[in-house]
Amino acid sequence: MATASRFANPVRQLSRSARSPRYLHRVRPVYQLQLRWASASASAISEPEAPGQKRSEKDIPSKTIKYTSESYPEIKRDSRFSNLTKEHVEHFQSILGSESAVIDGFSKDASEDIEPYNSDWMRKYRGHAKLVLKPKTTEEVSKILKYCNDNMLAVVPQGGNTGLVGGSVPVFDEIVINLQRMNEIRSFDEVSGVLVADAGVILEVADNFLAEKNHIFPLDLGAKGSCQIGGNVAANAGGLRLLRYGSLHGNVLGIEAVLPDGTIVDDLSKLRKNNTGYDLKQLFIGGEGTIGIITGISILTPQRSPAVNVAYFGLESYEQVQKFFSEAKSKLSEILSAFELMDGRSQKLLVKASNKKLPLGGEHPFYCLIETSGSNTDHDNEKLQSLLEDVMENEIVSDGVLAQDQTQIQELWSCREGVPEHLGHWGGVYKYDVSIPIASMYDLVNDVRDRMTKAGLVGDDDSYPVVDVVGYGHMGDSNLHLNVPVRSYDKRVEKELEPYVYEWVQKHNGSISAEHGLGIAKKPYIGYSRSETMVKLMKQIKELYDPKGIMNPYKYI
Amino acid sequence: MATASRFANPVRQLSRSARSPRYLHRVRPVYQLQLRWASASASAISEPEAPGQKRSEKDIPSKTIKYTSESYPEIKRDSRFSNLTKEHVEHFQSILGSESAVIDGFSKDASEDIEPYNSDWMRKYRGHAKLVLKPKTTEEVSKILKYCNDNMLAVVPQGGNTGLVGGSVPVFDEIVINLQRMNEIRSFDEVSGVLVADAGVILEVADNFLAEKNHIFPLDLGAKGSCQIGGNVAANAGGLRLLRYGSLHGNVLGIEAVLPDGTIVDDLSKLRKNNTGYDLKQLFIGGEGTIGIITGISILTPQRSPAVNVAYFGLESYEQVQKFFSEAKSKLSEILSAFELMDGRSQKLLVKASNKKLPLGGEHPFYCLIETSGSNTDHDNEKLQSLLEDVMENEIVSDGVLAQDQTQIQELWSCREGVPEHLGHWGGVYKYDVSIPIASMYDLVNDVRDRMTKAGLVGDDDSYPVVDVVGYGHMGDSNLHLNVPVRSYDKRVEKELEPYVYEWVQKHNGSISAEHGLGIAKKPYIGYSRSETMVKLMKQIKELYDPKGIMNPYKYI
Repeated sequence: MATASRFANPVRQLSRSARSPRYLHRVRPVYQLQLRWASASASAISEPEAPGQKRSEKDIPSKTIKYTSESYPEIKRDSRFSNLTKEHVEHFQSILGSESAVIDGFSKDASEDIEPYNSDWMRKYRGHAKLVLKPKTTEEVSKILKYCNDNMLAVVPQGGNTGLVGGSVPVFDEIVINLQRMNEIRSFDEVSGVLVADAGVILEVADNFLAEKNHIFPLDLGAKGSCQIGGNVAANAGGLRLLRYGSLHGNVLGIEAVLPDGTIVDDLSKLRKNNTGYDLKQLFIGGEGTIGIITGISILTPQRSPAVNVAYFGLESYEQVQKFFSEAKSKLSEILSAFELMDGRSQKLLVKASNKKLPLGGEHPFYCLIETSGSNTDHDNEKLQSLLEDVMENEIVSDGVLAQDQTQIQELWSCREGVPEHLGHWGGVYKYDVSIPIASMYDLVNDVRDRMTKAGLVGDDDSYPVVDVVGYGHMGDSNLHLNVPVRSYDKRVEKELEPYVYEWVQKHNGSISAEHGLGIAKKPYIGYSRSETMVKLMKQIKELYDPKGIMNPYKYI
Repeated sequence: MATASRFANPVRQLSRSARSPRYLHRVRPVYQLQLRWASASASAISEPEAPGQKRSEKDIPSKTIKYTSESYPEIKRDSRFSNLTKEHVEHFQSILGSESAVIDGFSKDASEDIEPYNSDWMRKYRGHAKLVLKPKTTEEVSKILKYCNDNMLAVVPQGGNTGLVGGSVPVFDEIVINLQRMNEIRSFDEVSGVLVADAGVILEVADNFLAEKNHIFPLDLGAKGSCQIGGNVAANAGGLRLLRYGSLHGNVLGIEAVLPDGTIVDDLSKLRKNNTGYDLKQLFIGGEGTIGIITGISILTPQRSPAVNVAYFGLESYEQVQKFFSEAKSKLSEILSAFELMDGRSQKLLVKASNKKLPLGGEHPFYCLIETSGSNTDHDNEKLQSLLEDVMENEIVSDGVLAQDQTQIQELWSCREGVPEHLGHWGGVYKYDVSIPIASMYDLVNDVRDRMTKAGLVGDDDSYPVVDVVGYGHMGDSNLHLNVPVRSYDKRVEKELEPYVYEWVQKHNGSISAEHGLGIAKKPYIGYSRSETMVKLMKQIKELYDPKGIMNPYKYI
C-alpha cells in the first residue's frame, strides 16, 4: 500500500533536535503586504482581503480606500461628540510632551502620516481622524482619557491594527490612541512562567523573549509580527493553538486598564489563583476597547515544547475528517497542539493562485494538518506512528506526509496559512468566521455553494461573479472560515449570503464571530448569536463603564 | 544507594491497565464526617475543622453551633429586608407546587429539617432561616427571585454547602434557595467534550457520567461527593488539578443564571470560541451567588487519561522543593497533573493524629506528592523514570516511593488529603488559604511559627495553646494552606495571627484567598488583596445587578 509506505519510515526519521534554537525562534511564513505606509504594514492573519479589491496594494494609494462613513451611510456621526479644537490639541501636547507622541493633522496637513492610523490593513475601513496620540505610560493614558471624557471627545484605542472587523480604526474624527510606545516587558518569573508586559509589546517580540526563557506565549497567529498583546487580549484572539493552550480568559491572570474617566484598573495579578471578588478583568478580554484601554497584561505562559511534528493528510469525506479528529484527540491526547482543516477546493485555489505544489499527489475532497508539541521526541513520534497506523489501516485517511525538518514544517503550514493569503487572487473574498458544532460544521459550506449554484452565480469563466465556495479553519476549536472568492464584488452574491449565513449559523447554535470579534463589521448581527436579554445586559455594562459613550463608538454592540 | 533502588524497579512495573474501569471510576478516600443530619453530610475538603471544636461531631447536637450573628456581633440585620409572612410562604408554595420543595419553618416548627441548611458542615457558621426553597427548574428560580426582589426578601443561594468561608448559609433569616433538585445532565457531545448540566448536579455524579464517556470533569476536590457543580463555579473552585486543566474561567463555556429581578441570563454556549460581546458569564464565576443564581453550566471536559502515576518524596529543604518542582515541570511537562507540598510537621501531626504509617521511613522537612496523567503508560513511566534518575542523582530528593497499584495510589494521596482531616485532632485549627509567589511561599509558615514561638504560645504540653504551625498545599498553583492546629481557641493566638498573616501576604504580593473565596470569613480583609479602586469597581457591579442587595447579603464585598 503506497500510502502506508509513505509514512512507514519518516516517522522514525523525523526526530529533530529537541532544543534547536532554530525551532525555538522559528516564525512561520509571513506575507508582507507591502503597504505604502511603514507602520501599518502587517503580516497576513487569517483573513486578509477586503471584498472587491485586487491584491495589488502597491499600486493603490491609500487614499483610494473608501471611507467607512461612505460604505456605511446609515452610520451618522454622534453629534454629542465635540469637534477637535486648537486648545484640545495643545492640551494633549502638554500631556505627552514629546513631539513624536502626537501626530497633529488638525493644525497642519499631516494626512500622509495619519493615513496608516486611519485605515485598516485590509484596506476595507477608513476613518477621518485628525489626531493620533501615542502615550508612553499608563498615567498618560489616564490623563488623555479623563480629558477626552470631560470634553466629550471620542477615541479609538489602537494596537497593531491587524483586526478584521474594523474595530481599531476611526469611523469619523475619533482621536486615535495608539499603544505602540508602551512596549516594555515588565517582568518574567521563570518558576511560575508569569509574564507581565505593556499592552503595546508585539506578540512576536513577547514570544521571542519567552523563547529565550524556554517558554511560549499561549497564543499564536499569522499577524504575530505586527499585532500587539494588548490588542490580542482586547480582541480575545483565538489563533492556531487554542486547542492546546486554551483561551485568553483562562491564561490572562491580570490586566491593567484605564477607564474613560481616567480610573486606572490595577488588576495586574501574577497569581494563578486569586479568589477575591468579581473577576472584572474578564470584561476587558474581548471588550474590543469599548469600556477602557488595556495598558498592561499579566499572562501565564507554558513551557516551550522541545519536540514538534507537523503532518498533512488527504481524506475522502467530512465524516472521515471527524473520525480522524476523534482518533487524533485520543491517540495524541496531551501532545496535540493543532488540528486544522482545509477543503479540497481551498487547496485547489491555493495552487491556482500561487503556483504552489501541494505536498500530496492526486486530489482529495478534504485535507487536514496536525501539529504535535511535546517534551519527548521519541514518545511523540511513537504516538504519531500509532495514530498513522490506525488511520491508514482503517482507511480514515487516504494519504499523508510528515515533515522531516523545519523547512518542511513551514512548507506544510503554508498549505494552511497560504489559503487566506491567496483566495483574493480573483478580485475579492466574502469571509465569514463562525463557530458551529463540529458535526454540522462543513454543511454550511455545502449549503452556501448549493445556493450560489442554484442562483447561477458560480462558474469557471468571467461571466460568473463567484469563483467557488470554500471552507477551512481550526477544526479543533469548531471554528470554520467560510470564504467565497469572487471575481468582483456583486450585490447578487451578497443577497444570497446575508442574512442566509447568519440565519444558518443561528439555527445550528453557532456563533457569528468565533475569533474575530464584532467591531463595526458584525455589530448589526449580534442578535444572531446573542439573545435580546444578553445584548441588553451587555449594553448595561457599556453604559456603566462608558456612560458618555466616547470609547470606540459606532461599534461592538 | 537505597533510594535509587527503591525507585529502580517499580517504575517499569507499575503500568496499570490503561482503561481499567476501576481507575476510571476511582474516588479518592472520602472522610465522612458523620454529621447528624443527612443532607449536610460532606466529604472532607481541604479545610475541615472549625477553630475551637473537637472532632466529635457525633456527640455535638447541631444546635450547639454558635450563631454567626453571635460570632460576628458587629453584623446587624439589614432593616430594609422584609420579615417573612404567611403570605410569602404561601406564594412560594404556589410557585413550587410540590410539598417537598418547601421546608416551612415559619408556619410550624421545622428546625430539625432546616438545621442542615442553616449550618455549614464545618459547624462554624449558623443562620436563622425559617424557609428553604428547592426549585426544580430555572423558571421556578426566576419566579422566586423576582418575588423576593419585589418584596425585599433576602436570599442565600446554596449548592452542596461544602464551602469554607460561610458563603452558603444564612446569617439572619435569609431564605435558602437550595439547588439540589436541579440535578439533570442536559447534554454531552462526545466529539467536542462539552457537557451541559444543571447547577445542582453533584461533582462526582458529573465525573462518573463523564468517565463512562472517557472524559473527565476538569476540576477535582475532596468534597466531590457532596459539592455541586453550580456551587463550584460560583465559588471558582480550584482543587487538585488546576495545574493541568486550568481554571474554570477558561473551561466554563457558558452559564445560565437568574438575576435578582428574575431575568434569565441565557448564556449557555457550547462553543469553544464565541467572540460576540462582553463575556458576562465570567462575573458569575467566583461571584459567590451575590449577583445571581447559577442554574446551569456548559463546560469543556478533557479526555480522561488512561495512564496515571502517583509518587511521594522526602526532601531536605524548601530550596530543594523548588528545584524539584522546576525539574518535574520540565521532565513531566504535559503529563504532570498534580504537584502537592506537605511540610514534615504536617506529616508528623498526621501520623500522631491518625496512627497512620507514612510511606517513607526517616524524617524529612518536606514531602511532595506528584501525579502524572497521560495517554501512554510506557511513555509516562519513562518520563517519570528520567525525572527520578535526575532528582536522585542530583540529590534534589532524599527518598521516594511510587505507587504500584490503585490501593497504593489512594494510600499516597491520603498522606496529602488526610492532613486537613486530622489537624483538628487537638481541638481546632486556624486556617489560611493563600497564594504567594513560589519563591517566598513557605517563608510565611516559618515567620508565623517564629512569631508564635517568640510569644511563648507553641509547645508540646497542654499549657501551650498552639500544637504547631504547618504548611501544605498546591505547590503547582502557588497555593499554600497555612494551618495552626491548637489545643483550644485562644485570643492570644488570634492576636498574633491577624492582621499579621494578611499583612504578610499583602507585602509579598499574594492573595488572601487563593481558592476558597470571600464569603463572610474574608469579607473584611479584601483590602489586603485588592486596591480601593478594585473594591469600588466590584461594588459597582454588585449595585448594578443587585440594586436592592437581596443576594447573599453580609458577605463578599
